[in-house]
Amino acid sequence: MSKPLTLSVDAMGGDHAPGVIIAGVDQFARAHPQARFILHGGPDALEPLLQSHPAARAASTVEPCTGVVEMHDKPAQAMRRKGTSMWNTIASVKAGTADAAVSAGNTGALMAVANLQLRTMKGLHRPAITANWPTARGFSVVLDVGANVDSDPEQLVDFAIMGEAFARALHGTLKPTIGLLNVGAEEVKGHDDIKEAMRLLRLHGGALGMSVHGFVEGSDLSAGTTDVVVTDGFTGNIALKTAEGTARLVGGFLKEALTSSPLSMLGALLAKGGLTKLKARMDPGSVNGGVFLGLNGLVVKSHGGADGPGFAAAMGVAARLAASDYAADIAASLERLAQSRAAQENQASPA
Amino acid sequence: MSKPLTLSVDAMGGDHAPGVIIAGVDQFARAHPQARFILHGGPDALEPLLQSHPAARAASTVEPCTGVVEMHDKPAQAMRRKGTSMWNTIASVKAGTADAAVSAGNTGALMAVANLQLRTMKGLHRPAITANWPTARGFSVVLDVGANVDSDPEQLVDFAIMGEAFARALHGTLKPTIGLLNVGAEEVKGHDDIKEAMRLLRLHGGALGMSVHGFVEGSDLSAGTTDVVVTDGFTGNIALKTAEGTARLVGGFLKEALTSSPLSMLGALLAKGGLTKLKARMDPGSVNGGVFLGLNGLVVKSHGGADGPGFAAAMGVAARLAASDYAADIAASLERLAQSRAAQENQASPA
Repeated sequence: MSKPLTLSVDAMGGDHAPGVIIAGVDQFARAHPQARFILHGGPDALEPLLQSHPAARAASTVEPCTGVVEMHDKPAQAMRRKGTSMWNTIASVKAGTADAAVSAGNTGALMAVANLQLRTMKGLHRPAITANWPTARGFSVVLDVGANVDSDPEQLVDFAIMGEAFARALHGTLKPTIGLLNVGAEEVKGHDDIKEAMRLLRLHGGALGMSVHGFVEGSDLSAGTTDVVVTDGFTGNIALKTAEGTARLVGGFLKEALTSSPLSMLGALLAKGGLTKLKARMDPGSVNGGVFLGLNGLVVKSHGGADGPGFAAAMGVAARLAASDYAADIAASLERLAQSRAAQENQASPA
Repeated sequence: MSKPLTLSVDAMGGDHAPGVIIAGVDQFARAHPQARFILHGGPDALEPLLQSHPAARAASTVEPCTGVVEMHDKPAQAMRRKGTSMWNTIASVKAGTADAAVSAGNTGALMAVANLQLRTMKGLHRPAITANWPTARGFSVVLDVGANVDSDPEQLVDFAIMGEAFARALHGTLKPTIGLLNVGAEEVKGHDDIKEAMRLLRLHGGALGMSVHGFVEGSDLSAGTTDVVVTDGFTGNIALKTAEGTARLVGGFLKEALTSSPLSMLGALLAKGGLTKLKARMDPGSVNGGVFLGLNGLVVKSHGGADGPGFAAAMGVAARLAASDYAADIAASLERLAQSRAAQENQASPA
């Protein structure tokens, strides 16, 4: 049997820390009795919470920190403050004492602190933040949703490699289909960078053993047309927040509709079972866990506003990835990509 | 009294033409007895439909065409085929015999045909497609949602001017607030082009009398944080289709939830009034009508899959804009922008 999982947890990060963090750890600990946790935070704040959460208590050690990165802190500030709960959460992964880090803190700060300590994997241009996107067919992997503000064609190829490995690790899809997000599905559409990225994906796709579907549109994200959707961090971040906002708007409209008359209210009461199921499917908590891919170490970002079950879901993503070979999978693909590039260059200029 | 409105209608464009087009014209005609219509299409196809739609019949003339632009035709093909119903629909606006054109045909082809015949307004870099976006507060104006595949900072300033004029004309908002779509609300966020666009908006905003709110995020689109949201055509197109796809997904989940048990089905039946209201709010038909702004002539694109009421809604957008001073409003803003630029240059290099 493999050695038990150890997760490094930022107990002070997020809108409702440390309360919901400890509740999340407790829920996860009950479901995974073998797992161990390093909780980074203030012992004065954490100990009383742990007393009322015995499963978390039994499996955790508390590592005191010297401060907390606030939600409004700038990434540059967070990078200079060693000893914060966020800094120490990443440091445990770098030191090899934990298999993965989980934090609900400030995304920009977490990305900066993780980049600084863990560094980008050899062979990759830049890391990416990956979202697990609910679709009509289940879930798709979408990246980058915000690690970068722009991405050149070669970075988009990197993202495809990372997304493919993530889909294999998290969803068990052996040969995930890859789509490149564009303004239309036809190959003639889009700007030069996106066309060049598609050319590169097609050029190296065979050597990579990659199933390149082609361009996909915004509507394909929730349709689940491909297992992986690759996009630059600017577009991906806006698409993600647009989808979250739209789901919230429709949810609000639904609530208004179901309270608009006594008859509607009675109907909603009778349909409560079905509507609760709907809420669960739309709940960001159930799909929580944006993963920072491409670093030398695994970092999962929970939604800042997540509740206990939401944070536990993020820990579940970390656990599944930690148990997988995603890093070796990415490294093997990068090796094949390098060989394919070398072969193309030899072909272009034969000796 | 002003002269009666004349709309030029592409009776053959769209997934369900000409049936739903004539139904839409008839509905609009009943609500606007003064309006006149030039219907471009095949008389053999249109005459039988008009016989069963007397309001449309009474207010319309049919102009025969020599072909139809299909939904899968390339823009370049459509541009070469004079005499199609789409071509002629635009030609009536160019000739001044109609106040606005309405088509549910192929967007790319319509944009190409409209650009070619009507040309970009003097002083603008490029036209833009504008969406009327449903929000928690009503509607916001979002542009560009697909006329361009990339946009430089000066074009984004043009879009702000066009969007402001559109919000005034369509929604009667005297001083619309302007947001620039980005990955975060803080001024330090985003790539160089978006920061430069914000600098230009702030620099000229005073001279333009424009209410520049700042950066907005994807979630602000459906929150309705600003009256106008400016973005490049690549991001805007993806955001629009992502939102449409998400609304469809949530609608599908809702349907499943409400048919998941007999009790839920009974509940849904009782709540039918409220749910019908919800459907109307989510129906693209109720907000139908993407407007091509920035051309010398008004062109409204209806959703390709719109039904009769949806096409009538697009005609309503065309009618309201045709009755407004939006073109003069844009021209006046462009004049102020030119003066502000000249003043800045004088300041930079005093004589």
